[in-house]
Amino acid sequence: MKHTAVDVIRTKRDGGVLTDDQIDWVISSYTRGDVAEEQMSALAMAVFLNGMTFAETSRWTQAMIDSGERLSWPVPTVDKHSTGGVGDKITLPLAPLVAACGVAVPQLSGRGLGHTGGTLDKLESIPGWRASLTSAEIRTQLESVGAVVCAPTAGLAPADRKLYALRDVTATVECVPLIASSIMSKKIAEGAGALVLDVKVGSGAFMKSLDDARELASALVAIGTAHGQKVTALLTDMSAPLGRAVGNAVEVAEAVEVLKGGGPADVVALTVALAAEMLSLAGVSVDPATVLASGEAYETWARMIAAQGGDPSADLPKPKHVHVVEAPRDGFVGRLDALGVGVAAWRLGAGRARKEDAVQAAAGVVCHVKPGEAVVSGAPLLELHTNTPDAVEGALTALAGAWEITDEAPPGNPLIIETIRG
Amino acid sequence: MKHTAVDVIRTKRDGGVLTDDQIDWVISSYTRGDVAEEQMSALAMAVFLNGMTFAETSRWTQAMIDSGERLSWPVPTVDKHSTGGVGDKITLPLAPLVAACGVAVPQLSGRGLGHTGGTLDKLESIPGWRASLTSAEIRTQLESVGAVVCAPTAGLAPADRKLYALRDVTATVECVPLIASSIMSKKIAEGAGALVLDVKVGSGAFMKSLDDARELASALVAIGTAHGQKVTALLTDMSAPLGRAVGNAVEVAEAVEVLKGGGPADVVALTVALAAEMLSLAGVSVDPATVLASGEAYETWARMIAAQGGDPSADLPKPKHVHVVEAPRDGFVGRLDALGVGVAAWRLGAGRARKEDAVQAAAGVVCHVKPGEAVVSGAPLLELHTNTPDAVEGALTALAGAWEITDEAPPGNPLIIETIRG
Repeated sequence: MKHTAVDVIRTKRDGGVLTDDQIDWVISSYTRGDVAEEQMSALAMAVFLNGMTFAETSRWTQAMIDSGERLSWPVPTVDKHSTGGVGDKITLPLAPLVAACGVAVPQLSGRGLGHTGGTLDKLESIPGWRASLTSAEIRTQLESVGAVVCAPTAGLAPADRKLYALRDVTATVECVPLIASSIMSKKIAEGAGALVLDVKVGSGAFMKSLDDARELASALVAIGTAHGQKVTALLTDMSAPLGRAVGNAVEVAEAVEVLKGGGPADVVALTVALAAEMLSLAGVSVDPATVLASGEAYETWARMIAAQGGDPSADLPKPKHVHVVEAPRDGFVGRLDALGVGVAAWRLGAGRARKEDAVQAAAGVVCHVKPGEAVVSGAPLLELHTNTPDAVEGALTALAGAWEITDEAPPGNPLIIETIRG
Repeated sequence: MKHTAVDVIRTKRDGGVLTDDQIDWVISSYTRGDVAEEQMSALAMAVFLNGMTFAETSRWTQAMIDSGERLSWPVPTVDKHSTGGVGDKITLPLAPLVAACGVAVPQLSGRGLGHTGGTLDKLESIPGWRASLTSAEIRTQLESVGAVVCAPTAGLAPADRKLYALRDVTATVECVPLIASSIMSKKIAEGAGALVLDVKVGSGAFMKSLDDARELASALVAIGTAHGQKVTALLTDMSAPLGRAVGNAVEVAEAVEVLKGGGPADVVALTVALAAEMLSLAGVSVDPATVLASGEAYETWARMIAAQGGDPSADLPKPKHVHVVEAPRDGFVGRLDALGVGVAAWRLGAGRARKEDAVQAAAGVVCHVKPGEAVVSGAPLLELHTNTPDAVEGALTALAGAWEITDEAPPGNPLIIETIRG
């Protein structure tokens, strides 16, 4: 049957279910440029407003995978994907930890856009480190080091890359079928043997409510399972920043602390929990906490950074300007809002507003205290790092109302809220 | 306030009401190219699915008017707009008739796309006639002849021209707020003193049901009234072709018959009814039927055609090939479906599938009998005219099931169903 873009759009516009053939046709034609951007954006809005069934979403995912190459690896592998949060540097300690436990991690990561940072932006604060590797380089490094964190290769799900950029400018981002197919097409095409998803919930996350996060996590797991992918999703808290450091170099420094056996308790706990899930899916029974304590994960980190041209012992960039926010009175940190801190770090220069913007390696926010911790009047609460002091005012605006000092310690939030298995 | 396309799209996507400021901004930015086609198409789909209030539609219309020039005329004027039908050549006798009654008609018309013909395509079958006039030429002709039928000037509602082309390829055509604002922005910008709308209902019309047509007509009249435009809408039947001729030269020939005092009863009746409404809105009490019978309307026609380079007495193009469909038995024409005949004429070469296609002046369908008329076995029912005999098969396919011979005469449909006044 011969399709036209107008027929496909009309089907979804009128609340119909797209056939497999329509989905395959529209995705491959869009990838080739035969379906125009304005046609795909009308279809995306119709999908946004009228939804897709699970079968449609699963086929859409397959069509996006089929738009490019599907990678495969010479050794057993396991991968992790986070839906994005504030201070979420978990990939940095996690990839070398899992590799040190015996399963290779080919972690193809992204850059930040908006208030959530990007793993590649963080690692680029390490002098000499480079994000772009060829498939052959990734393969070699997986065999020699066991862990790679790098940019996706160009041939991976090109349909998704086009559609992702289009959704960003057409207000069609926040839509579970489109988010789920975007994530899973990339992750399945990356070819890891198993996949653990860290679906963030809370103010600093894409999904603000538990119901929305659970819907997304369930869709991700179901699509993965339908495609024969071993997959588990953890719903984790993102109401406050993860760890104390939010930015680029500051997050690398915190990751290194964790790899050396220190670091904030929540970062350590989440790293170990995700590693345990990844190892379990890969069928390897090694205790990641023990390996972390042994220093082997740090050694793998150092080799991973060096293999990509970075100097793991180099000093990280320091900010030209530091502004300290002090506690106005004695008490407890009752709340420290992830979104407020994320936006502040972004405005200080850690993130970008447009894809083509550069980020400042040294910019970010350091949280001296976290929710539940005691403070005394005048003690530092937050440190704002930037090379552009004019940005401080905007950051302080973002932080207004984002934290509070209370008389009593607030109840703690569980870090890992729920686990959804395939 | 500073707007972004994403904010405006998101407002409508989430079921909100656009502010005047958002509408003004998005239409002017789109006209300039600062809002991209893919952004406008996402907005159009959101409007399609979530609607617009009357206030939004009215402001949207104003913003499209303001995107270009607003014409004004040296003499009192009145205009007519039809939503498009099969065999709808009414503009051809109507414009000179109303002019002959003493009110000038600046009729800026379109070309056909799909199964409904275009007035300019029809007139171009007259040797020498040209559709494109400058504003100054239109002005001069309005004063000297009183009637002009020509292409819109380039500066008229450029936002609508862009959006109309975009909607065509993004399945966002059939949406009352977008249709109504498109029609009224052009018609109000054209600056006629009063406006009569011929809203077609039935298989050959854009609006298939009376409810849909009434909704559109009411929206058109309300927008016109809100903009201070004198306006009346007639809902008229389009279940069968109007007149006997469907195509280009054949419709011109039928219009000339009407102007000379003959022609099919329905074409005469609708021409006179629309003329009466136009004259009434313009405050002129002349009986158009008397003027039509006097021959003055024909004389105005001849001067109108000559003023635009055409030879009103020239022979019209004849088709190279004529195929006759005969009645299979005695009886009455129970049904002659407008859509089937319109698609047949289109496939014979009278219309175009894409904007850049040429049309055949001589192509079309002549209906020897109309619903309710008696036929005898073997008598001609339909004549198919074309220069491309290969097209006959497709035309016959379109006509299969589009007519039937019954034992008794069917009940007649009223031609003018309803009148909606501002």
